[in-house]
Amino acid sequence: MRDVAIIGVHVTKCGEIWNKSFRDLFVEAGLGAIKDAGVDHIDSMYIGCMSGGLFVGQEHIGALMADYLGQAPVPATRVESACASGGVALRTGMLDVASGHSDIVLVGGVEKMTDIGGDEATYALATAADQEWEGFNGVTFPGLYAMMAVAHMHRYGTTPQQLASVAVKNHDNGSLNPVAQFPMKITIDAVLNSVLVADPLHILDCSPVTDGAAAAILVPADRVGKLGKKQGVKIIGSGHATDTIALHSRKDLCALEAVSKSAAIAYAMAGKKPTDMDVCEVHDCFTIAEIMAMEALGFFEKGKAGRAVEAGDTRIGGKIPINTSGGLKSKGHPVGASGVSQAVEIVEQLRGESGARQVKGAKVGMTQNMGGTGASSVVHIMEAM
Amino acid sequence: MRDVAIIGVHVTKCGEIWNKSFRDLFVEAGLGAIKDAGVDHIDSMYIGCMSGGLFVGQEHIGALMADYLGQAPVPATRVESACASGGVALRTGMLDVASGHSDIVLVGGVEKMTDIGGDEATYALATAADQEWEGFNGVTFPGLYAMMAVAHMHRYGTTPQQLASVAVKNHDNGSLNPVAQFPMKITIDAVLNSVLVADPLHILDCSPVTDGAAAAILVPADRVGKLGKKQGVKIIGSGHATDTIALHSRKDLCALEAVSKSAAIAYAMAGKKPTDMDVCEVHDCFTIAEIMAMEALGFFEKGKAGRAVEAGDTRIGGKIPINTSGGLKSKGHPVGASGVSQAVEIVEQLRGESGARQVKGAKVGMTQNMGGTGASSVVHIMEAM
Repeated sequence: MRDVAIIGVHVTKCGEIWNKSFRDLFVEAGLGAIKDAGVDHIDSMYIGCMSGGLFVGQEHIGALMADYLGQAPVPATRVESACASGGVALRTGMLDVASGHSDIVLVGGVEKMTDIGGDEATYALATAADQEWEGFNGVTFPGLYAMMAVAHMHRYGTTPQQLASVAVKNHDNGSLNPVAQFPMKITIDAVLNSVLVADPLHILDCSPVTDGAAAAILVPADRVGKLGKKQGVKIIGSGHATDTIALHSRKDLCALEAVSKSAAIAYAMAGKKPTDMDVCEVHDCFTIAEIMAMEALGFFEKGKAGRAVEAGDTRIGGKIPINTSGGLKSKGHPVGASGVSQAVEIVEQLRGESGARQVKGAKVGMTQNMGGTGASSVVHIMEAM
Repeated sequence: MRDVAIIGVHVTKCGEIWNKSFRDLFVEAGLGAIKDAGVDHIDSMYIGCMSGGLFVGQEHIGALMADYLGQAPVPATRVESACASGGVALRTGMLDVASGHSDIVLVGGVEKMTDIGGDEATYALATAADQEWEGFNGVTFPGLYAMMAVAHMHRYGTTPQQLASVAVKNHDNGSLNPVAQFPMKITIDAVLNSVLVADPLHILDCSPVTDGAAAAILVPADRVGKLGKKQGVKIIGSGHATDTIALHSRKDLCALEAVSKSAAIAYAMAGKKPTDMDVCEVHDCFTIAEIMAMEALGFFEKGKAGRAVEAGDTRIGGKIPINTSGGLKSKGHPVGASGVSQAVEIVEQLRGESGARQVKGAKVGMTQNMGGTGASSVVHIMEAM
């Protein structure tokens, strides 16, 4: 396998983007990444999208985007792993370059979620769960993550205040990110007094419904500079793992086994350990998800992540800054794009381009992208070249 | 890149399969391929599916199928390229093995299309076209292919009888295939007197709506026999290309540029030419599609494929046997599975296992899988080891 590096990235403004279509958003991200990299062509494309069919009535997304990006006849493939679709696009593109088949690969992600009603969007998102056992019986994602939160609170004493601390920290970071959907700062009280969606999760514990896209350009690590103009960020670890699709089939409601396993593979490939990470984007679709993911990634002992967040350990300047972008919570969660959007943040951090959000001296970073209630997880570890 | 071979295949019965669910169908195909190969584990999975969201309300298909196949935590990714999703799964899995990242990869495809009404299925299929310009204005796939047929008839003198000859030949082949959805033989008169769907295409010019799944096991070519028990079939060529998503944007309504380009790449990689092919599965979603694809693949000169079919050149025993399985027309067209199902037929032909459908002495074969009106095409060339 050849080593692979990222030499260009771009993320669109996230939010309810009325004046741009599904394809417009992707093209904006793709052209932005191509410009950032300075490449004069691409060899192939991989596009993460969770449900073009249900959100905008469009499948055949690879060909559509190659066409509208002006890149046909290059091969273009859409990949899907629910909310981990972007992470899977990054990984699949990496394998294409690693194989020697392609030299310049565009990986991207896109979702246009606000063109349908809220109940339809809730149904579309629920297709990431087990349709026959969970969706059919009416469980939606806030309900599923609420069950995980209740279990975590019961076993470890995690508190609603600790959950709220995740949201407060991510909105603080998002207030420094010009693409964030909800860049306002919030308080613990605001979270705890916001509408209860599924006890113990309030609306401010939940990531929003978002339109947005992100893209990155991958090349062989030994050809950075020859193929583009930007500093390379090497992908030194990649792990992908699956778990039971249904929450009720898990051995432990408080553990994200696919996250632990995908992280273990990525750490081993990179020759790194959790304490080597300078900055990390974690899949915070709900506040409890960030807490459980950080424990599964080995940043904190089981049951202790909530207290660590409350103590400020995951803030910029803390022990391990988490979701400096604002995360899915504040930056927004265009589901198929989120995994690539995480990579955009880490690449910019490792290039020292994050401005007010910059983690000083960041050299090694991680992205962790998750589908469903953790039935899929994709972890990448990256290092500045 | 490492050379890659297929050592196990399986396809389910195709049709309106009331007693098996979306996941049941895939698991049946996956277990069948694992058994055929004789492998004791797999390293990763790629699953082609066009629209789990619209057909069965299920996305997150990679994790779902890894779970139900008993293979979690292996990495599992769903890929989509409309009706070329299966071909893209085969290609993506091939790149994973070629890269050196995985040794034993299961590629599969699945679609469960009959659980929704006919109008809903027509809408779901139309998402393979350009939603904003084609779908929105009410064009469906029979209408789009009818426009291509009219153009081909106008320029080259292709006749309704020649179109019907494709259907008759494919049903003759399908009558010998136990998994075929419509194994009955038909006549030219039956086609021409069947209901007109979109002039000049009658219902018997159209492939059906189908439930079904298919799977194959890929390994490094130099480890065939060590990893499994079956004769290997080497993938010696792979090409994937895109074209404009909308038919009205094409330079030529009578040409399938993505097919020509994907074939040229595959021929060059394999060091083969059209006359080297002993047997070929072509994407015959409509009879005109088979004619245009055969011309794009170089089997016949532009405008002459219709006459060749009428003359029997594409029958078993003819110059180049096409769709010995019965094709999408008679075997059935479970859209996300069709590309893998084509590979199953070619592998069995090259292993000499096709019984009454066997092409004598077949050593080199091809699959050509297409999305939309040809906005995507994936071509694989395979050789018996």
